[in-house]
Amino acid sequence: MIELDLIGIGTGNPDHLTLQAIKALNAADVVVIPRKGNDKADLADLRRDICTSVLSGSTRIVEFDMPVRNPAIADYQERVAAWHAAIAALWAQTIETAVGAQGRVALLIWGDPGLYDSSLRIAAQLDVRINVIPGITSLQALGAAHGIPINDVGAPFLVTTGRQLRDHGWPQGVDTVIVMLDGECSFQHIAPGGISIWWGAYVGMQQEITLSGPLATMAATIMTTRQAARAQHGWIMDIYLMRRTAGPEIA
Amino acid sequence: MIELDLIGIGTGNPDHLTLQAIKALNAADVVVIPRKGNDKADLADLRRDICTSVLSGSTRIVEFDMPVRNPAIADYQERVAAWHAAIAALWAQTIETAVGAQGRVALLIWGDPGLYDSSLRIAAQLDVRINVIPGITSLQALGAAHGIPINDVGAPFLVTTGRQLRDHGWPQGVDTVIVMLDGECSFQHIAPGGISIWWGAYVGMQQEITLSGPLATMAATIMTTRQAARAQHGWIMDIYLMRRTAGPEIA
Repeated sequence: MIELDLIGIGTGNPDHLTLQAIKALNAADVVVIPRKGNDKADLADLRRDICTSVLSGSTRIVEFDMPVRNPAIADYQERVAAWHAAIAALWAQTIETAVGAQGRVALLIWGDPGLYDSSLRIAAQLDVRINVIPGITSLQALGAAHGIPINDVGAPFLVTTGRQLRDHGWPQGVDTVIVMLDGECSFQHIAPGGISIWWGAYVGMQQEITLSGPLATMAATIMTTRQAARAQHGWIMDIYLMRRTAGPEIA
Repeated sequence: MIELDLIGIGTGNPDHLTLQAIKALNAADVVVIPRKGNDKADLADLRRDICTSVLSGSTRIVEFDMPVRNPAIADYQERVAAWHAAIAALWAQTIETAVGAQGRVALLIWGDPGLYDSSLRIAAQLDVRINVIPGITSLQALGAAHGIPINDVGAPFLVTTGRQLRDHGWPQGVDTVIVMLDGECSFQHIAPGGISIWWGAYVGMQQEITLSGPLATMAATIMTTRQAARAQHGWIMDIYLMRRTAGPEIA
């Protein structure tokens, strides 16, 4: 039997690693690292650095090239499903080559394996026993960077995607919204009155950038900053929290 | 100047500690641990154990007795505000006694300092510089324990409280709801058709209990299990995720 550990590694700060993650990595026979060609956003270097810094035993590292999504499949859900099936096949092949039919295999998952990550769904297509090791998410790294609570006292909050925000507007019934996976600055489609934003890119990493203030005055600055940072680093990952306040906006 | 580190320690598994948390603890002059009388839910022993296991230098530990909420204040928000002010005064006094006007003070925060925790709001009442160290939350520990993704692909999810669920029912616009701070099994107020539940108590700890299935058939079992576990341990902390599915409920 293959044991597959999905290990949350946090958001790029090597110190986000938990003791549980370090123990799981060292208990693995093999750590599998995905590569996306020359795409810096694959963060393969960071994963290798983490392995180098915490592995103390005989754990091996193997790498594989990630498949790309098929743009010919028009439907979003279908395109993702086909992509997941292709990744599952590659995982199976990589694991078979690395350890055969029995062993402990670890995958380093950006953030937490349960949050806007597909590894659990992909792993479910394999004949393996899955263990999940939680990791620090960008949501938490964003809150920490700004030193703000995620929720108001006793109040709910919604975590959503840029696509959802763009298509459906401000969600009903909540005053706090966190937006992930937004490549298009979807906050620009929201009426900004009474809304404050706390934005962060590369949260937790050395190149971390944070901006906050009333959405009305910060939207343009964030878009400009995001574009420049993406050009400079060759990739970007960002997240933001918006809060609707009855009182005055934050300064 | 006082530097106050709010350090997320995860949900009771000492291995939830991040390297960042361990470094911050060792950089502190003093770690402040709250006590709630004989209330086992203060988890003071756990905090002491964590300090013992990771402190390697000259960091001292001081303890203080937490004030209780004033039941004479009827309004929930006012009662909480008064309680926070009392805690802030105690923190200020404890810090002053421990390090005077300058030093580095650490507080161990269950879960993550940004999520359903009041330490940031309380600390804002003090004249200190605040650093937030993120930690594993019960939401993540729940997902890991069940081996499930928190969100559906590209879909939003809502994090809320038992009180909100009881008073307002199933939230609009989401199929995934996570409920925290629920002392009353508020899921019993929801029409259970088409809803599955993943419940966990003491998630991440040795006494962890998990139950999952269709809400219609699991609700009673969870309530009975919760009551028995609370009686056995003298305290309980639980959390659950509910998902509305178009297809068949999970078995």
